[in-house]
Amino acid sequence: MTYCVGIEVDDGLVFAADTRTSGSFDDVRVHRDLDDARDRSLRTFTHLVDVAEYVGETLVASQAKVAEGAQPSGVNLQATLILGGQIAGELPGLCLIYPLGNCIASSPETPYLQIGESKYGKPILDRILRPATTMEDAARCALVSLDSTIRSNLSVGMPIDMTLVRADELRITQQMRFESDTPLFAEIHDTWSRKLEAAIHSLPRFPWEPPRREQSHPVQMPIPPARVASRQD
Amino acid sequence: MTYCVGIEVDDGLVFAADTRTSGSFDDVRVHRDLDDARDRSLRTFTHLVDVAEYVGETLVASQAKVAEGAQPSGVNLQATLILGGQIAGELPGLCLIYPLGNCIASSPETPYLQIGESKYGKPILDRILRPATTMEDAARCALVSLDSTIRSNLSVGMPIDMTLVRADELRITQQMRFESDTPLFAEIHDTWSRKLEAAIHSLPRFPWEPPRREQSHPVQMPIPPARVASRQD
Repeated sequence: MTYCVGIEVDDGLVFAADTRTSGSFDDVRVHRDLDDARDRSLRTFTHLVDVAEYVGETLVASQAKVAEGAQPSGVNLQATLILGGQIAGELPGLCLIYPLGNCIASSPETPYLQIGESKYGKPILDRILRPATTMEDAARCALVSLDSTIRSNLSVGMPIDMTLVRADELRITQQMRFESDTPLFAEIHDTWSRKLEAAIHSLPRFPWEPPRREQSHPVQMPIPPARVASRQD
Repeated sequence: MTYCVGIEVDDGLVFAADTRTSGSFDDVRVHRDLDDARDRSLRTFTHLVDVAEYVGETLVASQAKVAEGAQPSGVNLQATLILGGQIAGELPGLCLIYPLGNCIASSPETPYLQIGESKYGKPILDRILRPATTMEDAARCALVSLDSTIRSNLSVGMPIDMTLVRADELRITQQMRFESDTPLFAEIHDTWSRKLEAAIHSLPRFPWEPPRREQSHPVQMPIPPARVASRQD
């Protein structure tokens, strides 16, 4: 299994994925199409939705071609894709392309799209993301969403690839790979656990609890040990 | 769909559930068994694991009885239960009883058990819970887990029932029902959203970002509007 998320905020697009499929960012795999001088290729479209349709058609054709020659094997040939980018003159856009070739776009109400083990990392996206969120906060949110998923589901794993595409730059603005011991990621992982623990502890108290003593400096609590997924998952 | 969680910490047990099944806490439904003066009833066991086995047998027999007389209808008769409590002389215990009557117990590594839409609310449990967590922090964690699930999945909904069983009290210590507008729950809901947003914003910055200005008082950010589940869920 794998987990990928694409986020669209006013400032641009954020993509993050674990690397459990053969390629989490498949941009390099379409260079041949880009270079082809055909009537209809990735370079010929003037709207992102047309690109999504074209990729959807290519996806369906590719699945059909593999299925055609093969013996029935029970292997699922379906793939789902997140496609995002910006064509000059348009706003940036983000689409989820289904195995049947159809697609949906992100929206101001749900400014993100997910593939794979999407449930573990969804609450943090739902709570944080809105169009006005900065790209960097959206990127931090995506990393926390990935980190939570990796922690709660053993089938999703490091490293994490992340890409930022700032609006109107018409290029990949930042591209990073995080291993477990990449200092920035390790710091985000540890800080997040501590902040969550402090946040739970600081929530309103139940009627039967004694009032909390005010502390000018919150207690730094130890980070709980990493934990494997429980068996029922 | 529904979501239930049982937590075992050193101080005792916490149970929380949404109320989308006919009864989230079915303790009242076993009174007849408790009152029966049979050789084998809930009152006759001296170990919680024997209670779990007995309940498992009863569950299997009940499913078989319903299936026996009925026309094949495609309706799933299976049920999964969380059973917890304490028998005098033993430590408190927590079990998950599967539809086939077998069961697993919680453990120090995974001090909680879940039923139903378990994935959305799992990361917060994984990050916070360990045996030394106080019952009240475990209860706050359970409420956040429920709140996150309700927010991210429309099939799980308010109100929430919660019960605390403190170790060695041999009775239900606290029992509460939370509606959306129950002041304590509304405050937990709002506070949590604000704390998470502040936590994301305070995570380590990316190399290309300017350093954060230190603030003695964190900015109180507006709470994002409630958001419906995205279509792909």
